[in-house]
Amino acid sequence: MKNILIQPMSQKAFAPFGDLIDFNRDPDFAINNGMCDRYHALAQSDTLGDDAKTIISLGLGRPYHLPLTLKMMERHPLGSQAFIPLEEKPFLVVVAQDNNGKPTEPVALMAEAGQGVNYHRNIWHAVLTPLETQAKFLIVDRLGGGNNLEEHFFEEPYLVTE
Amino acid sequence: MKNILIQPMSQKAFAPFGDLIDFNRDPDFAINNGMCDRYHALAQSDTLGDDAKTIISLGLGRPYHLPLTLKMMERHPLGSQAFIPLEEKPFLVVVAQDNNGKPTEPVALMAEAGQGVNYHRNIWHAVLTPLETQAKFLIVDRLGGGNNLEEHFFEEPYLVTE
Repeated sequence: MKNILIQPMSQKAFAPFGDLIDFNRDPDFAINNGMCDRYHALAQSDTLGDDAKTIISLGLGRPYHLPLTLKMMERHPLGSQAFIPLEEKPFLVVVAQDNNGKPTEPVALMAEAGQGVNYHRNIWHAVLTPLETQAKFLIVDRLGGGNNLEEHFFEEPYLVTE
Repeated sequence: MKNILIQPMSQKAFAPFGDLIDFNRDPDFAINNGMCDRYHALAQSDTLGDDAKTIISLGLGRPYHLPLTLKMMERHPLGSQAFIPLEEKPFLVVVAQDNNGKPTEPVALMAEAGQGVNYHRNIWHAVLTPLETQAKFLIVDRLGGGNNLEEHFFEEPYLVTE
């Protein structure tokens, strides 16, 4: 099996794949008479289709453990997808660009406690991967017609390690 | 000052004003080969305008204290607005229907730890109101042209009490 070494999550590392949603930046402006700092438009929902809507869902994910055998990645051709942890726990993000309908070499990034991600449309990613204990997530993605899920199974799985 | 007594938050109590986003229900279906329960489409983003987008922002709110003097409510004529706490803390929700451009008698609901809300378009609501300590929220609302904020200042404020 080929190895993938997990890298730290950062705005820069994740930028080619989507938007990092976290408080590690200066607020953009204050609202409510100065009572709330707003970190504005960290991510934008991108949904294709005249009937498409952006929806808010919740996910309760069962845990995975490292080292992780990565057999499959998926992508959503019609919409972005955001996962924001509702508990202060790290989770594993594995992403890849597309090359003629297949993921390129995957990149593994460890999202720190409090960091959420918004996968851009068509970015290959692993399934939601909380580690060690089950975890709650907010999900922002698309409701609408059409096939919005593609899966790719690797001929040779990857081993994702710390 | 007129008094408003805070009621417990519930799906039923909040339904006339928006969507309650919490785990106090059965999951709708499993994804990721059974590894994640999805509580599906608990809220839908509603944004008016050809150029309008749904955006994801963060808010760091400074705390208020009870009893609360409610002088003002606001509404967003062009888009829904969701606030989901990123920490397990209660926060105060005050909402009202519209009556010819003014809020009707406000209703105060105490969101329990883990409960988020999505205000429907044009529903009058108080500003983000964490209690006792500052709190982090995820915000899902609208980016686009046009005036999306109306404020109403009460001639006689309300006193919101437990």
